[in-house]
Amino acid sequence: MEISSPGLVSVKEFSVKRIDGPSVSEFSDTLSVEEPLEIKITCDAGMDSIRKNISVTMRTPGNDRDLATGFLFTEGIISSKDHIKEVLHADAACSAENANSVTVALAGGFTPRLMQSDRNFYTTSSCGVCGKSSIQSIRTVSPFHQLEKRPLRLSADVLFGLPGKLKAAQTGFAASGGLHASGLFSPEGELLLIREDVGRHNALDKLIGRALYEGLLPLNEHILLLSGRASFELIQKAAMAGIAIVAAIGAPSSLAVELAKEFDITLLGFVKGNRANIYHTGEQVVCPNE
Amino acid sequence: MEISSPGLVSVKEFSVKRIDGPSVSEFSDTLSVEEPLEIKITCDAGMDSIRKNISVTMRTPGNDRDLATGFLFTEGIISSKDHIKEVLHADAACSAENANSVTVALAGGFTPRLMQSDRNFYTTSSCGVCGKSSIQSIRTVSPFHQLEKRPLRLSADVLFGLPGKLKAAQTGFAASGGLHASGLFSPEGELLLIREDVGRHNALDKLIGRALYEGLLPLNEHILLLSGRASFELIQKAAMAGIAIVAAIGAPSSLAVELAKEFDITLLGFVKGNRANIYHTGEQVVCPNE
Repeated sequence: MEISSPGLVSVKEFSVKRIDGPSVSEFSDTLSVEEPLEIKITCDAGMDSIRKNISVTMRTPGNDRDLATGFLFTEGIISSKDHIKEVLHADAACSAENANSVTVALAGGFTPRLMQSDRNFYTTSSCGVCGKSSIQSIRTVSPFHQLEKRPLRLSADVLFGLPGKLKAAQTGFAASGGLHASGLFSPEGELLLIREDVGRHNALDKLIGRALYEGLLPLNEHILLLSGRASFELIQKAAMAGIAIVAAIGAPSSLAVELAKEFDITLLGFVKGNRANIYHTGEQVVCPNE
Repeated sequence: MEISSPGLVSVKEFSVKRIDGPSVSEFSDTLSVEEPLEIKITCDAGMDSIRKNISVTMRTPGNDRDLATGFLFTEGIISSKDHIKEVLHADAACSAENANSVTVALAGGFTPRLMQSDRNFYTTSSCGVCGKSSIQSIRTVSPFHQLEKRPLRLSADVLFGLPGKLKAAQTGFAASGGLHASGLFSPEGELLLIREDVGRHNALDKLIGRALYEGLLPLNEHILLLSGRASFELIQKAAMAGIAIVAAIGAPSSLAVELAKEFDITLLGFVKGNRANIYHTGEQVVCPNE
């Protein structure tokens, strides 16, 4: 398994003027590429043949199959890699150069979970929407919500080493300064997988899609490191993949903490230098340095 | 007009453990609140009465009416404040305490632009999706795309002063470290309006919604400052509101720059200290310090 993605077309050069105090100079700047990706599914279930556009997301090109697979999984539309027959880049009706489309052909006989809207986890059929109902709806679709948590020790030394390892592996960010990253680590702090994107939710879907493909799920013996803030959406995706520990370099939101408590996911924020905040800790124990 | 929003319920206290090297201590941490908001419209157009759920977005509570109004405007569903009869907080069928729902009652006789999907600007009916088609589709719905740009001078001194003014006004961020902000400034650097949210697109929709309500649109003699990165989505919203100059403290994406060029929006990135990068400059001229 390749940890990162060599050959990723994630940056583009632009001619830029830089103001630096009183002086102005021209130079070539490297920016993160952002392009739309259309995710479609096809499903041949006897009489009920389905061909459906699922979503369009603004993403950084690269690992598009992982992104589509991860998105379908974290939205609860599929719950196993056995539900996928094949993942095709580009629309069959278009030239291969139109790489802004991925079609996921689902396995014969499998009926995708499409009853809910594409905002699965935000609303319920009950009156109104709130954080509590959003959390409840994840419980009903997460394949791993009843998974018994295993005791897992994460030492503070290992924790404090993670941001440096993520940054060293962020090839796209180094060039552009504009990409979010998600990194998957072992409890010993080994970087297993990293994915980058202009959208933080896409970086995580790419990572989870790859992990699903590699047969790594549930990720209940792993640590997820987020390069930025931890929102509800990111913890929702982590919960879907059964991730044990989520550490964010930035701040979590209120609903991210509430969801982490509900799913007993250890949640750390502001991981910088030799400091970190623990917002929830369950069976996974974070041990300070001796 | 109130510049910021006093009384905003945007933060919440959580009991947290902090690891600081070898020591662990307990304290109370202030986090940004994140909750879902459902945006609905009602439209009484004779026989064709419409009642439709438009979107659910994860947002920080506060300025919800501005957010709903701004979202409908930047998505091209309405193009004037005259298209709105009233904006109601909470669902009529629910108690007023359920504040996670806003219903926009549209003016009698007005038919909202709902032909396109809720991903208006990402796809077209042509084969496939790409950045170019996304940009084209904005052209068709922006009420100000043919607006003649007025020459506007922004001095570097004014520019370099903006981030400090935004930060000083960011009450939510100061408390939680987890909120994005959008600030609207005059060419002389006066802060006119600021909105904060866990989602950067929501902060901008809140700002544009308020500006629409105040009769300030088009914002072709204004400067928008973004607290973070500039993505396609943010420049798309700026283009819809006719904003002349967008400055971001973080990096822009490739498609953000391409869209700014297409709409002749002056786009600045990495505005920090006395440095800034100019990605596009049109009729609006950024002048370095003499």
